[in-house]
Amino acid sequence: MTITAHTSHQPAPAPATLDRARELAEPLLRETVARLEPWMTRIAAYHLGWADADGNPGTFDSGKALRPALALLAAEAVGASVDAALPGAVAVELVHNFSLVHDDVMDGDRHRRGRPTVWREFGVTAAILVGDALQVLAFDLLLSRGGPAGPAAAARLAAALRELVDGQARDLRFATRPWTGPGAVTVAEYRAMAAGKTGALLAAAGAAGAVLGGAAEPATAALDAVGRELGLAFQCIDDVLGIWGDPAVTGKPVWGDLRERKRSLPVVVAASGSAAAARRLAELLAGGPETPDTRLRAAAELIEECGGRQACEREAAAALARAGAVLDAVPMVPAVRAQYAALADALLARVS
Amino acid sequence: MTITAHTSHQPAPAPATLDRARELAEPLLRETVARLEPWMTRIAAYHLGWADADGNPGTFDSGKALRPALALLAAEAVGASVDAALPGAVAVELVHNFSLVHDDVMDGDRHRRGRPTVWREFGVTAAILVGDALQVLAFDLLLSRGGPAGPAAAARLAAALRELVDGQARDLRFATRPWTGPGAVTVAEYRAMAAGKTGALLAAAGAAGAVLGGAAEPATAALDAVGRELGLAFQCIDDVLGIWGDPAVTGKPVWGDLRERKRSLPVVVAASGSAAAARRLAELLAGGPETPDTRLRAAAELIEECGGRQACEREAAAALARAGAVLDAVPMVPAVRAQYAALADALLARVS
Repeated sequence: MTITAHTSHQPAPAPATLDRARELAEPLLRETVARLEPWMTRIAAYHLGWADADGNPGTFDSGKALRPALALLAAEAVGASVDAALPGAVAVELVHNFSLVHDDVMDGDRHRRGRPTVWREFGVTAAILVGDALQVLAFDLLLSRGGPAGPAAAARLAAALRELVDGQARDLRFATRPWTGPGAVTVAEYRAMAAGKTGALLAAAGAAGAVLGGAAEPATAALDAVGRELGLAFQCIDDVLGIWGDPAVTGKPVWGDLRERKRSLPVVVAASGSAAAARRLAELLAGGPETPDTRLRAAAELIEECGGRQACEREAAAALARAGAVLDAVPMVPAVRAQYAALADALLARVS
Repeated sequence: MTITAHTSHQPAPAPATLDRARELAEPLLRETVARLEPWMTRIAAYHLGWADADGNPGTFDSGKALRPALALLAAEAVGASVDAALPGAVAVELVHNFSLVHDDVMDGDRHRRGRPTVWREFGVTAAILVGDALQVLAFDLLLSRGGPAGPAAAARLAAALRELVDGQARDLRFATRPWTGPGAVTVAEYRAMAAGKTGALLAAAGAAGAVLGGAAEPATAALDAVGRELGLAFQCIDDVLGIWGDPAVTGKPVWGDLRERKRSLPVVVAASGSAAAARRLAELLAGGPETPDTRLRAAAELIEECGGRQACEREAAAALARAGAVLDAVPMVPAVRAQYAALADALLARVS
């Protein structure tokens, strides 16, 4: 199967597989979140796009439901029904949202899915606690309602979370490193960070879905690998959008990653290719969040000239090709295979 | 068995059962924490009392090891060896420390175990992430190294954590409530909060130890209940120490809970007994962290006059009596029974 990368800034229609995953997961997700203390439930409902900040029900951006989709598809790929994987689908979505709420505090991000982040709207204390709550609910759900394979799925999730925290720690430490010279962040270090921060949870989504669907180890390992490669591709595209993305599509400010001086892949590629470019980048971005737009634009141009954007898109395409190769070796009905292809495509088109 | 409450402010020697639990748990705790990203490991080592802020090894206050002790004792109570319960002992200690690190950020606490809290020493970002990491390690450990009963122990832990987060949310919300009148915090609400915030994890420690030791449900439920009652007693004594404790013993500033305007049990009792006292308390503590010592002293005296301290000590004694009654009904060898008695005693003497 060939999956092609396209990083169009136009919003693409959400493919049926994502819409279906969101619809299937939402009732159990809502039921699970409703078990929290009412104040926590209200904040979670805001973050999950079900209510405004005052608790009035509404329909806001809930995220892509990519992880639940991977969990449900994996169960179908191994011949099980989506019902078997539902606790896994909800658990990975809970963990994903836990990580978003905490990461937004740690990274100082002010917007998420086109609205103020939880910490901006409800304070850092509430953001810490609601993040903790979402993480706890994920394990509680898998271990209390996951059935006989629930513990195996929970073990996959715990291992992934350890990687995720590791990746976040590496990412935060990048900010303390020089822009050029022997201590600068390398592309290999970036890859290890992204594998943890993004790849691990997508891998766990696939693995949890497979395990809950009764799969044996070879199929589970393959669907784990597919998730991991899709995660790497996703992170590369996210990095492109973090610099060149259209705010109307990403829900985040333009040049956001540059303003935050993030060592995303395009930046790392540009800085590791040329010491002069690295020094110029460090200069242009020295102002942090206060950097004027003219400098951010110049930095984005410099990164593109140095091949940072192209390398990032190439890296995404390579990860997608690896995912496609692994998928080819897993026997599954054509309808499910087609959904994987549509999902990979949508992932890169970055529907919101 | 009769367990008597004594709230002496003198440091008592740690009983053998706590020292033993710390010694038994430490190697696996260190091994587990060492699996984190090095920056995270360093911060965890600081918090756990194994190193100074620069990472130099040292021996600082590591906490009481009460939860590991309850896990190990429970295994012995049901006739198993402590080895079986070791992953449970380490998991509850990890979760306890996760909650301390995050609670210190949420409560704005500046000191823990006689040293600056993690957020004060390393920043809020590091405190959030290291807390997340410790929670993840607990589940990862039980699910990967807990043996056949690991998932059952992990399920107990997840349910306890849900209660713990619930209790913390309730506690934080108390600060938004009036001091007197129909919306004031009641003693019943306090009890529900404390049952979650403190009781649940001590209950899970006992239950996890029993489950890992191969216990059937009646014994597991009993040792769960013992932990829960000890937790309630512990929280009551903690509340007494939070107002009247000697900083040299508690490692926290004198009148700390009053400075933070916490609705601890003595405060709730005093405020719910008399509207005039409640209004006076609200007045005295209106300055929050900036309240002068003379006012804090007056508030402490007012609470004592209203019977807040005595009620708290009575509540602790009642919880201890209930724990003793449950223990009486569980068959176990006398040596283990004696350790429970020593543990309950030490818990109330609040060895550090």
